Amino acid sequence: MSESPYTEETMSLQLGPLKRAKTYELVVKKIKDEIFAGRLRPGDRLPGERQMSELLNVSRPSVREAIRILEAMEIVRSRPGNGVGSGLVVSTEPSRALSDLLGVHVALSSYSVPEVLSVRMALEVQAVRRIATRVASIDLSQCADTLQRMADPLLDRESFLDLDTEFHVGLARASNNLLLGDLMAALREAVRRPMADAFDNDNDWAERAVTLMSEHTAIFEAVSQGHADEAESLVRHHIEGFYLTDNGELPEQSPSEKE
Amino acid sequence: MSESPYTEETMSLQLGPLKRAKTYELVVKKIKDEIFAGRLRPGDRLPGERQMSELLNVSRPSVREAIRILEAMEIVRSRPGNGVGSGLVVSTEPSRALSDLLGVHVALSSYSVPEVLSVRMALEVQAVRRIATRVASIDLSQCADTLQRMADPLLDRESFLDLDTEFHVGLARASNNLLLGDLMAALREAVRRPMADAFDNDNDWAERAVTLMSEHTAIFEAVSQGHADEAESLVRHHIEGFYLTDNGELPEQSPSEKE
Repeated sequence: MSESPYTEETMSLQLGPLKRAKTYELVVKKIKDEIFAGRLRPGDRLPGERQMSELLNVSRPSVREAIRILEAMEIVRSRPGNGVGSGLVVSTEPSRALSDLLGVHVALSSYSVPEVLSVRMALEVQAVRRIATRVASIDLSQCADTLQRMADPLLDRESFLDLDTEFHVGLARASNNLLLGDLMAALREAVRRPMADAFDNDNDWAERAVTLMSEHTAIFEAVSQGHADEAESLVRHHIEGFYLTDNGELPEQSPSEKE
Repeated sequence: MSESPYTEETMSLQLGPLKRAKTYELVVKKIKDEIFAGRLRPGDRLPGERQMSELLNVSRPSVREAIRILEAMEIVRSRPGNGVGSGLVVSTEPSRALSDLLGVHVALSSYSVPEVLSVRMALEVQAVRRIATRVASIDLSQCADTLQRMADPLLDRESFLDLDTEFHVGLARASNNLLLGDLMAALREAVRRPMADAFDNDNDWAERAVTLMSEHTAIFEAVSQGHADEAESLVRHHIEGFYLTDNGELPEQSPSEKE
């Protein structure tokens, strides 16, 4: 008999506790794999819980748990009723799940506010450049409407913040890139709390509101007139300006600079 | 008695079926709220299932389901054992959950490949500019190492694609913005399949590999020497070049242009 290559020592070195995938995790993975393979498409209806448990040869509770996870990730959603299109349907609306995920992880400080702002800057620059270079085919009416509502001098800070968010997310969505719009919505949602704090702690709110308004108007006019470079520099100034006012730091700083 | 403002007609107009939140959804929301309020922080240990069900006055299965969803979102994770730091712990590593979510939604065509590439372009430009403008404090050794491994002429296409991904994600991570790195990893993962298809269908793979290599080397040299503008234009050319080769389309196109 030849000597085994596994001595007691190498065994103890190589063998940690096995992590066994749970059944519901396998079901989640199976559904995702079907999506990646293109066999499950948006709007497709999934089999019912009983049928799925038979097809996959797993328990119904495992199927149920998997479905809950897929729902939480906005990969499937339930439609009420019994007719066509009811039941469990493959979804196409990822934005809330994305906002959720990013928002929680900013709150957990997995991502810092400067990191989020830096990414937001990159995306917003891309958005205004996209709009400015193809403005003839872009619908900016919603952004114009938001701007008009922001001009109301009686707005409280929270309503102003809501409209501020609506303006920036609206710009990103107007750029006709769904991912850009969803990420912008997620990033804005993720820093909502620190932004609200900054607004609340501002001793000269009235002045700030006027400044922010005029910056928004300038950005809007630059993109409407197709001036990509000007729009980019206005966006950079707007985002850096907001941040510098509150913390005296640039959003672009690296971890080593933070110390 | 004054007339009720709710006539039968307005009732039927205003009242659709109520969507009642399920208990496990309320538990998920409760944990998230604790995180948003700063009372739960990364590394904190959650109470056990039994204790949590008593504290929240909900059933243990509801707690269990909530925990599975939080695990799937990488908000909490289980650590084995009974000692300090074991049990259910608040996590800080969102990158896999993010990749997962974006990847599935690209597969579902919630996001198109051109949309992903456009966002990737914005982030990668931000990354190389960040590196180039503070190169003295940035560690590029891992990118250099990846480049060296890519130069092996015997690499098959899949290994090349792995290293290609490693190079770009490595650049984003080297920029010292965790969110930028995680999003880049997620976006690359999301378009892995179409990229692999493009590589597989390339009739002149050897030539393409040489071109991609030299573009990577040029980007690396530009950032190493602190040339932000040059790095930006090389990145734009590299990403557009890849895309144009295969589809004759620019990644920046809007939905109306697609038709």
